[in-house]
Amino acid sequence: MTVATINAGRLQRRLEDFARIGATAAGGVNRQALSREDRAARRLLAELALARGFHVFQDAMANLFIRREGREDDAPPLLIGSHLDSQPTGGRYDGALGTLSAFEILEALEDAGMQTERSVEVVAWTNEEGSRFAPGVMGSMAFAGAADPAAWRSLADSKGASFADELAETLAALPEATARALGTPVSGYIELHIEQGPSLEKEKLAIGVVTGVQGTRWLQVTITGEAGHAGTTALSYRRDPMVAAVGVLHALQASVMPSDIDARLTVGRIATVPGSVNAIPRAVTFSLDIRHPSAARLQEIDAQVRAICGEQCAAQGCSVEIATAFDMPPGVFSPAMVEVVQEAALRLSLSSKRMVSGAFHDALFVSRVAPTAMIFVPCRDGISHNETEYVEPASVENGARLLLEATIAAANGPPPV
Amino acid sequence: MTVATINAGRLQRRLEDFARIGATAAGGVNRQALSREDRAARRLLAELALARGFHVFQDAMANLFIRREGREDDAPPLLIGSHLDSQPTGGRYDGALGTLSAFEILEALEDAGMQTERSVEVVAWTNEEGSRFAPGVMGSMAFAGAADPAAWRSLADSKGASFADELAETLAALPEATARALGTPVSGYIELHIEQGPSLEKEKLAIGVVTGVQGTRWLQVTITGEAGHAGTTALSYRRDPMVAAVGVLHALQASVMPSDIDARLTVGRIATVPGSVNAIPRAVTFSLDIRHPSAARLQEIDAQVRAICGEQCAAQGCSVEIATAFDMPPGVFSPAMVEVVQEAALRLSLSSKRMVSGAFHDALFVSRVAPTAMIFVPCRDGISHNETEYVEPASVENGARLLLEATIAAANGPPPV
Repeated sequence: MTVATINAGRLQRRLEDFARIGATAAGGVNRQALSREDRAARRLLAELALARGFHVFQDAMANLFIRREGREDDAPPLLIGSHLDSQPTGGRYDGALGTLSAFEILEALEDAGMQTERSVEVVAWTNEEGSRFAPGVMGSMAFAGAADPAAWRSLADSKGASFADELAETLAALPEATARALGTPVSGYIELHIEQGPSLEKEKLAIGVVTGVQGTRWLQVTITGEAGHAGTTALSYRRDPMVAAVGVLHALQASVMPSDIDARLTVGRIATVPGSVNAIPRAVTFSLDIRHPSAARLQEIDAQVRAICGEQCAAQGCSVEIATAFDMPPGVFSPAMVEVVQEAALRLSLSSKRMVSGAFHDALFVSRVAPTAMIFVPCRDGISHNETEYVEPASVENGARLLLEATIAAANGPPPV
Repeated sequence: MTVATINAGRLQRRLEDFARIGATAAGGVNRQALSREDRAARRLLAELALARGFHVFQDAMANLFIRREGREDDAPPLLIGSHLDSQPTGGRYDGALGTLSAFEILEALEDAGMQTERSVEVVAWTNEEGSRFAPGVMGSMAFAGAADPAAWRSLADSKGASFADELAETLAALPEATARALGTPVSGYIELHIEQGPSLEKEKLAIGVVTGVQGTRWLQVTITGEAGHAGTTALSYRRDPMVAAVGVLHALQASVMPSDIDARLTVGRIATVPGSVNAIPRAVTFSLDIRHPSAARLQEIDAQVRAICGEQCAAQGCSVEIATAFDMPPGVFSPAMVEVVQEAALRLSLSSKRMVSGAFHDALFVSRVAPTAMIFVPCRDGISHNETEYVEPASVENGARLLLEATIAAANGPPPV
């Protein structure tokens, strides 16, 4: 047995091979969930797996598993992987990097003839993106028992294609895969992914050791005042919802993010009614996207929003309605599994920082059923969900080396919990 | 000769008669410029005029004039009046009050057998509203030589009806009217109108002595930053145009109107691009409706907007573009003519205040060619451009009495300049 090492050239070739499946003119991919392109990618991965003697499984959600047996073949396996589906104008690394790096780990272990205690399985989760069929992280959500797939049977995409039909066709297209129950026990999960943000690149760090996924809450705020003529109505006669809205947003912008480095508050959308240039609006609506890795802080920020809205609206003689449009609690990863990744990075002398993921990942739901960690690598300018998404070959290699080191640590000895 | 007095009952009946022309179910009027209803109203007024022995004229823009001869029939006449056209869902007083009150003045003078030095003419200006054919205040604009009517020949309304055809049909529908050149000299102009704002009613004043029409400038502001992911992008990496926009609006809202009782600043419309809840916007656009009776102050506010935009955008790493979408300079009425109205109000013991008109009126353009003043009366809740527009009979009577008193003063003795 030799020391297992990543074959960086092979991994780059895999990335290029898969980037051809659903390739767009601008250099990205359109390989949406349960499409012909998605099926082609699954087929290619399954064939590569079978060629190496790995076993291929799929569950009722078409989550794809590639298993390399360990010594204790009855023990729950260590899962590594990500997703293969993409945005309509997606990049070639989002999901594919983690999945193909995970497959490279299996090949590296096989090349070295290294047997692990626990089996290691590569997973490609179904429909992480949620762009063709909502919601996203669908396969991992069902795996974790957080949603009943029956609820999705009647879904159709924007062209009317049936989710149920596409899922059936996807399952049927891989007869080589052994059927497996949905939600089998696993000993842990490690997912490699691009950061989809700019911080690792700007801070010149090789690795993000991800400690969890921040919670997200979307609020829809409607402030109602009194419409009026922009020319004839003096200030003292106005009940202007725009003044109240600006007061709210100014206060929130001055306090929420500046006082808390982990908080995110974004106004993505705002509009007035009636929206005439010469009319004091009757109402203003805006969205607030609030994020925090701490559920308690998320709730505090929500309460702060409501309190500030109350004050500002009272001052302007306006009323306010606040609706919660979306609410996803934070996911905290297993400290023991996070430590596996951290220590592996230290052993490999890869510069790193601990960080929270700003975006959702399959790991969010898997962390509810198994000790989980994530590894981030930098992507150029933090750009993702964009055909120009790019990861330096050195970052690809760093991520894969770390995933290998962490996999060996997590698949041997007492399982991190 | 007896003292001329208003016949309040007759004026109320005239208002009701004209409110039937284009009456809507909700109690307002749809009597748009150069429509069949507009022609019917012109016909009715002309017939009432001819029945009293007044002369009827119309110019090439179908501005309608009803003349009661004075002693010096060669001298330029005093003009009183307003407009008869309405909004699509307009009120029964906007324009009609001023025109029919002016006609009541002619009838009151005739009833009393009072001869004035200068002739007095009632005018009904064409297309004040500008809702069917833009721009508004069209007839008075052409009368004042501020626009060439040839530019409007190719206009069509939203149903494709031709402005030129409708104008020709309107002129042809009143063969009793003598043709007159466009823009004949007049010695002065007094227009009675509803306030279209809430201040007289709230301050319990009978009369607004209008000193001018405020200037209006519409700015379209576009602030461009950098789009980003609401979850993954920390504050220090953001160039958020919403933060810049809120900074601008907060500063403007805190200073412009609070520091200057004559200023108006309104944000009627705002939007983000791309407008996704979970995206830091790439750009924000908003409108600013700025008004001031002083051209110099209007320019200062414009400069203040640009300066604040520059500062806030620099602070947020954003760029800004400001376009002037509309620019109407203030109109200042002749102090001597304003004084005629003021002194008349004092003689009649009508409570009043000097004020600037927040909305455009025909008087704005006529003031460029003749000494002009306006009289405002309160309308309920300040509501106008609305079928529920309402003026108390007492206010109707006050306005007409004042218009009579001011007309007698302005049509006799040295003309106010």
